Amino acid sequence: MDFSSKLLENAVYEMSQLPGIGKRTALRLVLHLLKQPENQTNMLAEALSKLRSEINFCKSCHNISDTEICEICSNPKRDSSIICVVEDIRDVMAIENTSQYNGMYHVLGGKISPMEGIGPQDLNIVSLVNKVKKGEVQELIFALSSTMEGDTTNFYIYKQLEGLKVTTSTIARGISVGDELEYADEVTLGRSILNRIPFESAIKAS
Amino acid sequence: MDFSSKLLENAVYEMSQLPGIGKRTALRLVLHLLKQPENQTNMLAEALSKLRSEINFCKSCHNISDTEICEICSNPKRDSSIICVVEDIRDVMAIENTSQYNGMYHVLGGKISPMEGIGPQDLNIVSLVNKVKKGEVQELIFALSSTMEGDTTNFYIYKQLEGLKVTTSTIARGISVGDELEYADEVTLGRSILNRIPFESAIKAS
Ligand SMILES: [Zn+2]
Ligand SMILES: [Zn+2]
Repeated sequence: MDFSSKLLENAVYEMSQLPGIGKRTALRLVLHLLKQPENQTNMLAEALSKLRSEINFCKSCHNISDTEICEICSNPKRDSSIICVVEDIRDVMAIENTSQYNGMYHVLGGKISPMEGIGPQDLNIVSLVNKVKKGEVQELIFALSSTMEGDTTNFYIYKQLEGLKVTTSTIARGISVGDELEYADEVTLGRSILNRIPFESAIKAS
Repeated sequence: MDFSSKLLENAVYEMSQLPGIGKRTALRLVLHLLKQPENQTNMLAEALSKLRSEINFCKSCHNISDTEICEICSNPKRDSSIICVVEDIRDVMAIENTSQYNGMYHVLGGKISPMEGIGPQDLNIVSLVNKVKKGEVQELIFALSSTMEGDTTNFYIYKQLEGLKVTTSTIARGISVGDELEYADEVTLGRSILNRIPFESAIKAS
């Protein structure tokens, strides 16, 4: 593309670094901003850089949080004896939306994926196992996507828990195999949490 | 959506104000930025606000420019006796990409569209007619999309030129009727400029 302005070219380039945004889409978005009041661009720019510089991850569950310990972890009304293990914070949001779950979360930050070079050490697994070692957790619910990477991750964590007194379960697969959690409808997702099954049965079934 | 962080919620909200970006896509983009080095977010934010605050439009052709008069208008090697009339700066970029055109441009900033409340006074039409009145322009090439609004705009400008000594032409319609200019491939678009026809013939043909 031939730009008549370096400023425009830069803005389009930076915008096109976002996943799924090609150069043409980036140009369309940037030209849209130019047609809107200057304020809109400034609010977007500020919101992004403020998020990036001030964002915290909860010291306990690794969820995004504006405070050291997130609102879920610090809520005394929630059941801290159950931990739902999820891939990323979008899954926390998806499950919270169902209003069916009153326990805690643990955000792994991804799945084990040898293909993408993601090993157990890249995920928040040690802190999860340490939490269980303290002895107050009674149940872990594995709520990763039911893909090969999800299954591998579940199984890896399960092995780390050997000898520890904790029940493990996986959410019921009302959600079709291979589907991403966050795209499930709220009812299905809520039900699959209520109907969770012991992880051992899930291993045998597959 | 239930956000665990106001900072995150704000960033997603501002991102979802962009056209074609829903809340879920916005969340995906924002979480992607959080996984990248902080620098990437800052460069995006800076590029956007810098563009918005420092952008200029060429005083002559209304194209985006970092200088008062754009590189095309100030290039003595270009033929200032021909002006290609386009809807927006994306069309300038599309035509420049063909390397088939060595004249000037005039960016209208839109098309006449009663449905959207856009009248002639909202477009850069007066400055175009004034340019022609100076007597140095020999040909105007109408290169608007061949939609009803495009045709209306062409015709409105054509009427404003009555009594002035200028040839008008429209780009050849190798491009299928109703298609947006910017999505045409370079060869087709280049050819349609070379094969432009007198505007009067275009009126009779439709
Ligand atoms: Zn937390
Ligand atoms: Zn210019």
